[in-house]
Amino acid sequence: MDGLAPGITVDTDLIAHQLLLRRPAGKTGTARREEDPFRIVSGMVNGKTTGTPLCLLIPNSNQRSGDYAALSGLARPGHADYTAQCKYHGFQDARGGGHFSGRITAALVASCAILAGALKQKGILIGTHVQECGGVRDRAFGNLNEDITHLNGQVFAVLDDAAGESMRAVIEAAGAEGDSVGGILETAVTGLPAGLGEPWFDTVESLLAHAMLSIPGIKGIDFGIGFDGVRLRGSEYNDAFRMENGTVITETNRNGGINGGITNGMPVCFRLAVKPTPSIYKEQKTVDFLTGENKPIAIAGRHDPAILHRARVVADSMTALVIADLLAGRYGTDYLADERK
Amino acid sequence: MDGLAPGITVDTDLIAHQLLLRRPAGKTGTARREEDPFRIVSGMVNGKTTGTPLCLLIPNSNQRSGDYAALSGLARPGHADYTAQCKYHGFQDARGGGHFSGRITAALVASCAILAGALKQKGILIGTHVQECGGVRDRAFGNLNEDITHLNGQVFAVLDDAAGESMRAVIEAAGAEGDSVGGILETAVTGLPAGLGEPWFDTVESLLAHAMLSIPGIKGIDFGIGFDGVRLRGSEYNDAFRMENGTVITETNRNGGINGGITNGMPVCFRLAVKPTPSIYKEQKTVDFLTGENKPIAIAGRHDPAILHRARVVADSMTALVIADLLAGRYGTDYLADERK
Amino acid sequence: MDGLAPGITVDTDLIAHQLLLRRPAGKTGTARREEDPFRIVSGMVNGKTTGTPLCLLIPNSNQRSGDYAALSGLARPGHADYTAQCKYHGFQDARGGGHFSGRITAALVASCAILAGALKQKGILIGTHVQECGGVRDRAFGNLNEDITHLNGQVFAVLDDAAGESMRAVIEAAGAEGDSVGGILETAVTGLPAGLGEPWFDTVESLLAHAMLSIPGIKGIDFGIGFDGVRLRGSEYNDAFRMENGTVITETNRNGGINGGITNGMPVCFRLAVKPTPSIYKEQKTVDFLTGENKPIAIAGRHDPAILHRARVVADSMTALVIADLLAGRYGTDYLADERK
Amino acid sequence: MDGLAPGITVDTDLIAHQLLLRRPAGKTGTARREEDPFRIVSGMVNGKTTGTPLCLLIPNSNQRSGDYAALSGLARPGHADYTAQCKYHGFQDARGGGHFSGRITAALVASCAILAGALKQKGILIGTHVQECGGVRDRAFGNLNEDITHLNGQVFAVLDDAAGESMRAVIEAAGAEGDSVGGILETAVTGLPAGLGEPWFDTVESLLAHAMLSIPGIKGIDFGIGFDGVRLRGSEYNDAFRMENGTVITETNRNGGINGGITNGMPVCFRLAVKPTPSIYKEQKTVDFLTGENKPIAIAGRHDPAILHRARVVADSMTALVIADLLAGRYGTDYLADERK
Repeated sequence: MDGLAPGITVDTDLIAHQLLLRRPAGKTGTARREEDPFRIVSGMVNGKTTGTPLCLLIPNSNQRSGDYAALSGLARPGHADYTAQCKYHGFQDARGGGHFSGRITAALVASCAILAGALKQKGILIGTHVQECGGVRDRAFGNLNEDITHLNGQVFAVLDDAAGESMRAVIEAAGAEGDSVGGILETAVTGLPAGLGEPWFDTVESLLAHAMLSIPGIKGIDFGIGFDGVRLRGSEYNDAFRMENGTVITETNRNGGINGGITNGMPVCFRLAVKPTPSIYKEQKTVDFLTGENKPIAIAGRHDPAILHRARVVADSMTALVIADLLAGRYGTDYLADERK
Repeated sequence: MDGLAPGITVDTDLIAHQLLLRRPAGKTGTARREEDPFRIVSGMVNGKTTGTPLCLLIPNSNQRSGDYAALSGLARPGHADYTAQCKYHGFQDARGGGHFSGRITAALVASCAILAGALKQKGILIGTHVQECGGVRDRAFGNLNEDITHLNGQVFAVLDDAAGESMRAVIEAAGAEGDSVGGILETAVTGLPAGLGEPWFDTVESLLAHAMLSIPGIKGIDFGIGFDGVRLRGSEYNDAFRMENGTVITETNRNGGINGGITNGMPVCFRLAVKPTPSIYKEQKTVDFLTGENKPIAIAGRHDPAILHRARVVADSMTALVIADLLAGRYGTDYLADERK
Repeated sequence: MDGLAPGITVDTDLIAHQLLLRRPAGKTGTARREEDPFRIVSGMVNGKTTGTPLCLLIPNSNQRSGDYAALSGLARPGHADYTAQCKYHGFQDARGGGHFSGRITAALVASCAILAGALKQKGILIGTHVQECGGVRDRAFGNLNEDITHLNGQVFAVLDDAAGESMRAVIEAAGAEGDSVGGILETAVTGLPAGLGEPWFDTVESLLAHAMLSIPGIKGIDFGIGFDGVRLRGSEYNDAFRMENGTVITETNRNGGINGGITNGMPVCFRLAVKPTPSIYKEQKTVDFLTGENKPIAIAGRHDPAILHRARVVADSMTALVIADLLAGRYGTDYLADERK
Repeated sequence: MDGLAPGITVDTDLIAHQLLLRRPAGKTGTARREEDPFRIVSGMVNGKTTGTPLCLLIPNSNQRSGDYAALSGLARPGHADYTAQCKYHGFQDARGGGHFSGRITAALVASCAILAGALKQKGILIGTHVQECGGVRDRAFGNLNEDITHLNGQVFAVLDDAAGESMRAVIEAAGAEGDSVGGILETAVTGLPAGLGEPWFDTVESLLAHAMLSIPGIKGIDFGIGFDGVRLRGSEYNDAFRMENGTVITETNRNGGINGGITNGMPVCFRLAVKPTPSIYKEQKTVDFLTGENKPIAIAGRHDPAILHRARVVADSMTALVIADLLAGRYGTDYLADERK
């Protein structure tokens, strides 16, 4: 990770915690988890960033035995097997491995935890809940800072425990049938100054959407009231401005904290559509792209019937990355350092 | 516009046509429209691109008289007046002018028409319809190439004329009440090769979302079945692969033509949430950010009760920009030239 | 030009002045010059930058009559005729026109004059002299701020008037023989804070070299004592540090104000090798790349026997561009605004 | 390293060989060298690149014991100690360590060896010799491909062995006096197609200069005849074109294979000014930037009296990086793959 301000305190406990939230688990997060060991090999001295590139390593304890000759041409539906073949002409890592492994998000989560810690020092909080899963909905955000603090301590991030229980039941039921479920994540960012972002090409929506839609399984994003607002009239949708304690605020936040691509000082809120995990046990129709034959596929191995509760920490991490970049661009490269500005 | 391949035929009729689709009109597109005059001052010789930067000018026939001293601090709800003040400290163009004017999309539409023409030569078509407006829904896409060809000739782009009539009635009714409406656009791209895009950071979804969410008024995007698919199970969502005439296709297209961030050769499809136009005649609550007072605002002047039917050609233009960039990056800078490759 | 801080005062006199320095003239700068008319069509309100893209137009009063059919395949030695053909396959502007015309530097000089004015407000001065031309050398820089102020008022920028007279005589003599001369420019930047630049990939030397070697005719750059220092020993080359009035300075400046890619607070100094103007009247050997024949070429028309005294203001402009970018990146996007920070 | 084409054969012997050329050695390259062990942990399968990011690790066998409390404020003249303090505010790695260690070039050399191998498959060769060191000059390039092949096998890269002996004697003599020497490197690239590069902003000269001036100790670059050509007249400097075996060539190569920023098909040639190694044993004047006192410094430890013969392989590596990028941009991302195009 390059571009870090010098002098940011690296909170290794937070890194370990974020990695924990990302890990797969027995059933939906109830089983014992071991830590991912990580090692920072450059860019940190005495627990603080140096300002030069930070390299963090997470050894892959679970490496394949190397029999790459067995690369199958059987394309798993919903996966990148076939598209990787089109792009990489057969030289890609074996099905689901290497750069296409979900494991690659571990390094992202770990390094962005440094940013999340630095943003918190500046009063900027980021949190995500499972807003909907398998038809069950969590309660809406209330007091955002309290809710975010609560969520960031939870393995299965919901605001309403009962809803969480129901979601887990749905996930387990799907898993028991060899199937999978998706859902919706909702992310909120509080404490952002007004005036971040560009009116064109690099709006805050553009930058966040770019980052979020790079996360595997995310197929949509909307800001504020988003798709739910398309049937409102302007008079219902517009957020009225009001002075409060000498500050301009909006009475509602249907625009998700962004007007004309630029932050308005209200919380930035967005939702993510998470598709159901494509890895399922049920037999599916597909092709062998090496032989050009239609063939059935039944995917063996262990796989989670849902990933959205784990994707949540990846969403938080990518959000931290975008916000840190915006702040450094706007206020200069030292902005996130502990002891400056 | 830089990065154009040399030797692309510049279709000035297509430029004029695309500009026409973008123009405001009496009621919702029924009145007589005059052309935006444009002039290409560099980057074209004998009707073909040179390969060096192309500069296209559209004179602003409707310039303000220049009394910029009257910059008001009254923030129009839903607009960038307040956020522009936060970012530009009072030096920005007057309310709604300059870079914040919708007029800025004219140059974008005009220059991207060159790309759209070149893409068409390669068999790549782009089209958008108003999928939903004011609670009225257009019919779904059917034969995509036919539908796109039809849409690109329409000022108010719908597949079902009756639905279009109803939408226009809703828009006019809202306008008559001094209010506005939003809706959903749906865009399809056909003819793309499989293997475009990156598995991380620059997925095709990321690049398209980045571009689309830079368009004023767009607050959400989803790909394929998107948010509507979050309640499906994996076995319902996954697109089965099948061989057809020696080519790998998918039987459904719930992933919107993209697997793992990379095109799979199926049409790329996405929807855009367009918020209701923030300019309304009804009185609204707001603040004067220069004086810090709460004040009502009533926005005078002429403004459209809906912009989504005009935003549609901006969406097509930004799509052409992203696709042309992807192709040039993948296959080299000469790819879109008429007479090469 | 995008990325300008909002609120920079645009000094149109300085723009006109810089354009004047760039213009060709009878003999070497002695004849009467008319102004290039320019017009700022966006990005400026009431004489200050808005912070959104600034568009400045300089109409081309001297446009070709349009007979592009006469594109010759006769490659002028030292020019881009042949390489443009290889890159643009015959679609490029006719020989020496369009993007390959030296005229393109006018817009660059004009827009960078805005940066030069803003940098001056921050105490950062940029100036260039003709260090050597046709074997004649100017005197070395002395009091830098005084010398720069002097140079920026001169059409033929030398510190020693007698040297300048001799240079002009050499240039005119070469011109009289249908030949041309080159030389060396030396640029100095004073007032820069220490700590700008990156240790790798984007060193200050890298950024300045990138910019300078994009100027037509520049074939080399060195910093501080540069190539002249390669025979010194380390003990002779190293710049000793010393405290002076509470500030760290170096006693000499052989490193040109940059250590490890980062500014050290001393003036940044570099030299540019300017090749002799390739346009000469003397007959030369060449090929017709359209027919594949060896042919002689004699270049008609008016052309200067030297351009280095005009390239000097282009070098100043590109330097301002790099420095402004470095400062905005380091200290934030508002840094160059008049009334902030 | 990201952006590698899929299917490039990774020649680990070449990587080891390039690392060997970079290593310090007893006296000037005569002593026994051990290999740097390296490990490729991603981006390669069965000895070929996958097309996704390649991660190569070189463990630091020689790590500091960690007593970072001893960070001294004594700025070594010619080094980045003081500028790093200005940029990183005391959080940087200790003097000469971390990102400021010359050791960081090892990873660069190793990964660029993959590119060098792939370029060679396309007939593109890169080589560098010590053109001048301590006042001794090597012979000029003759048959370039033969000379490059010869140089790439040499630890101390000269074309004339006797000159190399004299250079080494000069280096050792300087070392014996606790001093150091610099010199000039000359790099040549053969086999490049005509038509690479941009006429403005990203000329081939700009891109190569950007890369080269990022290498520690490089203070200047010139192309072709460069600074030596500034006293020539245009008629002497211009390279005449001529047809040879159906191809356009130039009779001389004073422009270093580049016209108007674009390759012309002739070898690309440039020289680099390498300053004398700043680490010397002789006592020097400096300051303690933590206390603000003037103090003498005597640098202990082992350091080479010259680095230019080692910097040569770093120059070759950075050249390979720039050329590979240019080719992938021009001809598409698969261009360097073994079995395609």
